[in-house]
Amino acid sequence: MRSTLEELAQRVDAQVIGDPQLPIDGVAGLRDAGPTDIAPLFELQQQGELRQSGAAALLVPARLRDHAAGLGRPVLLCQDPRRALGLLLEHLLAASERPSAGVHPTAIVDEAAVLHPSARVGPFCLLERGVRVDEGVELQAYCHVGADAWIERDCRVGSHAFVGAGCVVGAGSVLGPGSVLGAEGFGYWRDGQRWRRIPSAGHVTLGEGVEIGANTCVDRATLGSTRIDEGAKLDNLVQVGHNAQVGARALLCAQVGLAGSVEIGADTLLGGQVGVADHRRVGAEARIGAGSGVATDVAPGETVSGYPAFKHSRWLRSSVLFRRLDRLSDGLKQLALRVESLAERLQAVANSENDGKPVDPEG
Amino acid sequence: MRSTLEELAQRVDAQVIGDPQLPIDGVAGLRDAGPTDIAPLFELQQQGELRQSGAAALLVPARLRDHAAGLGRPVLLCQDPRRALGLLLEHLLAASERPSAGVHPTAIVDEAAVLHPSARVGPFCLLERGVRVDEGVELQAYCHVGADAWIERDCRVGSHAFVGAGCVVGAGSVLGPGSVLGAEGFGYWRDGQRWRRIPSAGHVTLGEGVEIGANTCVDRATLGSTRIDEGAKLDNLVQVGHNAQVGARALLCAQVGLAGSVEIGADTLLGGQVGVADHRRVGAEARIGAGSGVATDVAPGETVSGYPAFKHSRWLRSSVLFRRLDRLSDGLKQLALRVESLAERLQAVANSENDGKPVDPEG
Amino acid sequence: MRSTLEELAQRVDAQVIGDPQLPIDGVAGLRDAGPTDIAPLFELQQQGELRQSGAAALLVPARLRDHAAGLGRPVLLCQDPRRALGLLLEHLLAASERPSAGVHPTAIVDEAAVLHPSARVGPFCLLERGVRVDEGVELQAYCHVGADAWIERDCRVGSHAFVGAGCVVGAGSVLGPGSVLGAEGFGYWRDGQRWRRIPSAGHVTLGEGVEIGANTCVDRATLGSTRIDEGAKLDNLVQVGHNAQVGARALLCAQVGLAGSVEIGADTLLGGQVGVADHRRVGAEARIGAGSGVATDVAPGETVSGYPAFKHSRWLRSSVLFRRLDRLSDGLKQLALRVESLAERLQAVANSENDGKPVDPEG
Repeated sequence: MRSTLEELAQRVDAQVIGDPQLPIDGVAGLRDAGPTDIAPLFELQQQGELRQSGAAALLVPARLRDHAAGLGRPVLLCQDPRRALGLLLEHLLAASERPSAGVHPTAIVDEAAVLHPSARVGPFCLLERGVRVDEGVELQAYCHVGADAWIERDCRVGSHAFVGAGCVVGAGSVLGPGSVLGAEGFGYWRDGQRWRRIPSAGHVTLGEGVEIGANTCVDRATLGSTRIDEGAKLDNLVQVGHNAQVGARALLCAQVGLAGSVEIGADTLLGGQVGVADHRRVGAEARIGAGSGVATDVAPGETVSGYPAFKHSRWLRSSVLFRRLDRLSDGLKQLALRVESLAERLQAVANSENDGKPVDPEG
Repeated sequence: MRSTLEELAQRVDAQVIGDPQLPIDGVAGLRDAGPTDIAPLFELQQQGELRQSGAAALLVPARLRDHAAGLGRPVLLCQDPRRALGLLLEHLLAASERPSAGVHPTAIVDEAAVLHPSARVGPFCLLERGVRVDEGVELQAYCHVGADAWIERDCRVGSHAFVGAGCVVGAGSVLGPGSVLGAEGFGYWRDGQRWRRIPSAGHVTLGEGVEIGANTCVDRATLGSTRIDEGAKLDNLVQVGHNAQVGARALLCAQVGLAGSVEIGADTLLGGQVGVADHRRVGAEARIGAGSGVATDVAPGETVSGYPAFKHSRWLRSSVLFRRLDRLSDGLKQLALRVESLAERLQAVANSENDGKPVDPEG
Repeated sequence: MRSTLEELAQRVDAQVIGDPQLPIDGVAGLRDAGPTDIAPLFELQQQGELRQSGAAALLVPARLRDHAAGLGRPVLLCQDPRRALGLLLEHLLAASERPSAGVHPTAIVDEAAVLHPSARVGPFCLLERGVRVDEGVELQAYCHVGADAWIERDCRVGSHAFVGAGCVVGAGSVLGPGSVLGAEGFGYWRDGQRWRRIPSAGHVTLGEGVEIGANTCVDRATLGSTRIDEGAKLDNLVQVGHNAQVGARALLCAQVGLAGSVEIGADTLLGGQVGVADHRRVGAEARIGAGSGVATDVAPGETVSGYPAFKHSRWLRSSVLFRRLDRLSDGLKQLALRVESLAERLQAVANSENDGKPVDPEG
């Protein structure tokens, strides 16, 4: 999809420096960019790469404004580089063809499933009875959608994904390859000498615009629904336990693990590999540092880190001191020696004052 | 499956408060329950939800006995709410139809595989030569069972599961969607400038009633078997390295990682995201707190936490002090100042006693 | 494949103790070994097992040389037991048949895909337009290879693996079951009240001889390539974020997580469950202890541990002191009491010297 630099500038709210009529039809990295591509240059260190680059134009953050003229290529100067890059990619990738609608002949669709004619069901998909697939949905290959599940309009379901019986995937959601929605929860009771499973009679419900990463697992609820609210984004290899609730627009980075019945508020951010213990609540807009283990509730808006997690600013201080714990320990030992030496000295002074008569050294 | 409240009470060892003849045919959460459903009410805070609920009856723990009469609905009062809920769900879900036996026409079954006629082989399954599938087994969709593997009676194998050649799945076991049994172990030796794999000639052997979560991986042994003993339960996204041994009835929560040749005793509990270093042994009935990293052996019955893990009670104390490490550090600094001030004072006293003659201040 | 003990000794650079003409055709653990098998005995504690073992011969490390004669079986004495075992397994497993070449009738191969005639495409595979599959490649079952992806010669791709459009898998690489190469990166910008995805226009590129574990995920780059260089080995359930670069021969143990744009140097070792924050660099030959969280760059050759990670030797000291943080805290309290007691004593001495005239106790 060919545009002029000026048209792109309007699309991403950028300022053109150089020829506004320059034709652009792609975005690429500096290394790969060709004569009709625009390439991002977000750091001045990339100037070395720039010399070898065939890029026709550059996308440059406004904070590098003073350097833009010296880069030797036409420039789009933008306030928010992530936004500008995102919009450019959206625009210039839009050209790539959409798969055509229809059910692949190898797919198995139960006769009691309801498919919108615009839906695309890829090779080897399996849709059980009562499944509903709405307008514009794309199921890639090997997707297994269980009985009575509902995939709302414009969802994209990656290859090898599993959507269990009765689960609901909100409009415009994206499920990554190999993701598993609605496996059974990990709940047992002890029956004499063995563990006996508490069956999962509930479901998983995703709001609109939820994104679930590759090989991520969201367990179904015992009763009711494990819920991921609208606009929440889960990265790859995340675990969401049964009956957990994830608030709107929450971001869960890769390998996060939420135990059963956890509640994560709206607009939260959980760094990679965070774990949250069962039944804990993380308030809205809270942020949890990567690798933290959350063992207690987190108040709305708070930032916590650590294992177990507590206030981030305090954790930073403690972490710095942890590195020099040996100095603290040595300091204490030396001070103790110093104190004993003072005590002896004091005893000597007291003795001499008392003309050598013995005195209890502890005072 | 319709029952009276009284029949359910007998089934779960509960006491009826209210009409024993009340007909019940489902369990649901308070929010979703209809006029023939029983709903659990395990916390008094749920009374708000109760007002809106259409539930016909309530399952209430005995510790809320004094409140049961005031709830305004017939009640089943139970000693162990997890047990009662589990049994109720088992009973009332039993009605849901079992998939019919037989091999789906899209499945590929090697002619040298041996299938019990009651087994169910779902769409797109692949069973290689020498596979044995016993009575009552259900293979969902896209299950790949490698040569000479053996799935014992009454197992349920989730969609997209992989069971490698020669592996054995004990009777009544459950494999979650996307689980991988018998991938090659992660073992290499350095051959000059490159890593060279030590091939895995062994297998994976699961005992009876083992459950393996979604996308969980159990690697095959180099020689012999990686073994998960009877009744052990592994949650989602767990990693079990080659030659590891997991004892009977062990519970491994989500995202646990066991390195190669680890031995986990019977009746142990490993919290979420626990890691265990290679060749370490965790004794029977030990408990390991979520997020811990086990670097040394753990004695039977012990409870450990932390990274690296040590005795849980000590870890709790250390963790509390870690949060206030700055106070400890500040305390030490202040005490050092105090000591110096005392030293000066002592010097002054000694000087005055000696009529101003100089004295070594260090005593 | 039958060999004499002497032939095996030459193959693995070992010394024969006993009959050099002994015929051997398999390797097995002590427990399972039969009368034509050789079994490894790497620890003297295994002598108990040896008594029950049917093994014809033993593979023994040179450090146990003095005990070799007493073991009662012919022995191969080797310098590097991992190497010897690896080579023996390679040799003796080579007999097992290779799957025959060709495309399984259930596989779907786009007519614009280019397959070498020696390639093997297993049941239910899906190869989209423009895919290139070179000589000797084996795609097991349910592999989905996206448009224009390139699988170089002698690769082995496990069942249920996903290779996204445009990705390149270097010669001799191995992808584990359920692995996902080229899912979209986890990058968003905030558009008013919602997160909006930055599309991934880049790819994943694996060098030669890369191995990727089961259910491991490698995200595609925003632009350019997420790159795993030749000979790097990734265990199961690893996450590699978009635009990350993993150097040659790096070893990433299970459940490691690399955030976006991380750079991992050549010949590094990352223990299980390590996390590395976005844009961090880990220098060549660095080693990172299991469970560590890397928040800052790591210099080449350094060994770090901890959360956040720092120099391993210092971390060990700090970890030991962390366990006895209560003693440190108690020590400080007791020392403070001791100091106050000295201060009182000093005051008393000063008072008596001054004949009872009051003195400022702080000196």
